[in-house]
Amino acid sequence: MPDFHRSIPEGDDKERLVCRDCGFIAYENPKLIVGSVVSEGERVLLCRRAINPRRGFWTLPAGFLEMAETAEEGARREAWEEAQARIAIEGLLAVFSIARIGQVQLIFRAGFAAPGFAAGPESEEVALFDWAEIPWAEIAFPSVHWALRAWRAAAGRPLGAPASNPPEDARGTVPLPQGSGL
Amino acid sequence: MPDFHRSIPEGDDKERLVCRDCGFIAYENPKLIVGSVVSEGERVLLCRRAINPRRGFWTLPAGFLEMAETAEEGARREAWEEAQARIAIEGLLAVFSIARIGQVQLIFRAGFAAPGFAAGPESEEVALFDWAEIPWAEIAFPSVHWALRAWRAAAGRPLGAPASNPPEDARGTVPLPQGSGL
Repeated sequence: MPDFHRSIPEGDDKERLVCRDCGFIAYENPKLIVGSVVSEGERVLLCRRAINPRRGFWTLPAGFLEMAETAEEGARREAWEEAQARIAIEGLLAVFSIARIGQVQLIFRAGFAAPGFAAGPESEEVALFDWAEIPWAEIAFPSVHWALRAWRAAAGRPLGAPASNPPEDARGTVPLPQGSGL
Repeated sequence: MPDFHRSIPEGDDKERLVCRDCGFIAYENPKLIVGSVVSEGERVLLCRRAINPRRGFWTLPAGFLEMAETAEEGARREAWEEAQARIAIEGLLAVFSIARIGQVQLIFRAGFAAPGFAAGPESEEVALFDWAEIPWAEIAFPSVHWALRAWRAAAGRPLGAPASNPPEDARGTVPLPQGSGL
């Protein structure tokens, strides 16, 4: 591995990872997660994770945006990869900042563009849940809760301004409780 | 510099930059730009760039989100760094994908939280412009046009769903014309 240390490059004002051998600066910037709350009627699509972190827990189809993709394209790709679902995006439901791990999440509201879904390679299981059936104790990440709540709050209405972090974790810095569902 | 070549790591399905010497994978993900249309009455704040790219052209206070920042914190920091302005964010005005350069831009609508502004180190000049006075031929980037249009379209109204790319450049892939203002 490269021999990185932290130092402030000339003309910068923040510590960066700089290789001691060659001077290469590995800029670390927050990464974008794109995903969707996909619904059919009253039911929402969730995926049980086949990979870590949070293997076995339920999440939305979502993942890292790749180069040369738009945010919407990335969300559609993730729905295909994780849930083998072809989705039709309606608009942006929520923007969450998870400063603790350097993430910003763009969560879209979507329906099915074609019938059918199935577990992709990163999912153990994919299913539609009525609101009352959602396995809240087995949800993978707090932001999945937030997104589902934002979806519920806007249900049946045109999308307004996107939701953002809830007041209890306004910066996405609250540590996850150990041993709990989260 | 590390001796990177492009290859597909095991378990992945995309080419990544992998160091021939040590196997380090330099994942390239799109970067997040955060910025604001800051207005006072009918006038909007623009900064004339003191740095390349597009030195001498006008832009919004905006820049790369840093680690451990929320999107709103990054937008406030950029307004301070580039325009020495303390801003109050109202909400998310627009989300633009610039697939050509691997960027997603989150543009907020904001007012001044405290009076005053001045050119920061990356700006030659900072000024408030009436709509009719905006130097359209000297705007730095297409997305600055898009953001200003979105701001104008929502002027005086609560923010609804954020604007996204205009139809003529739906993916942010249209090359910039040579020699023009853009």
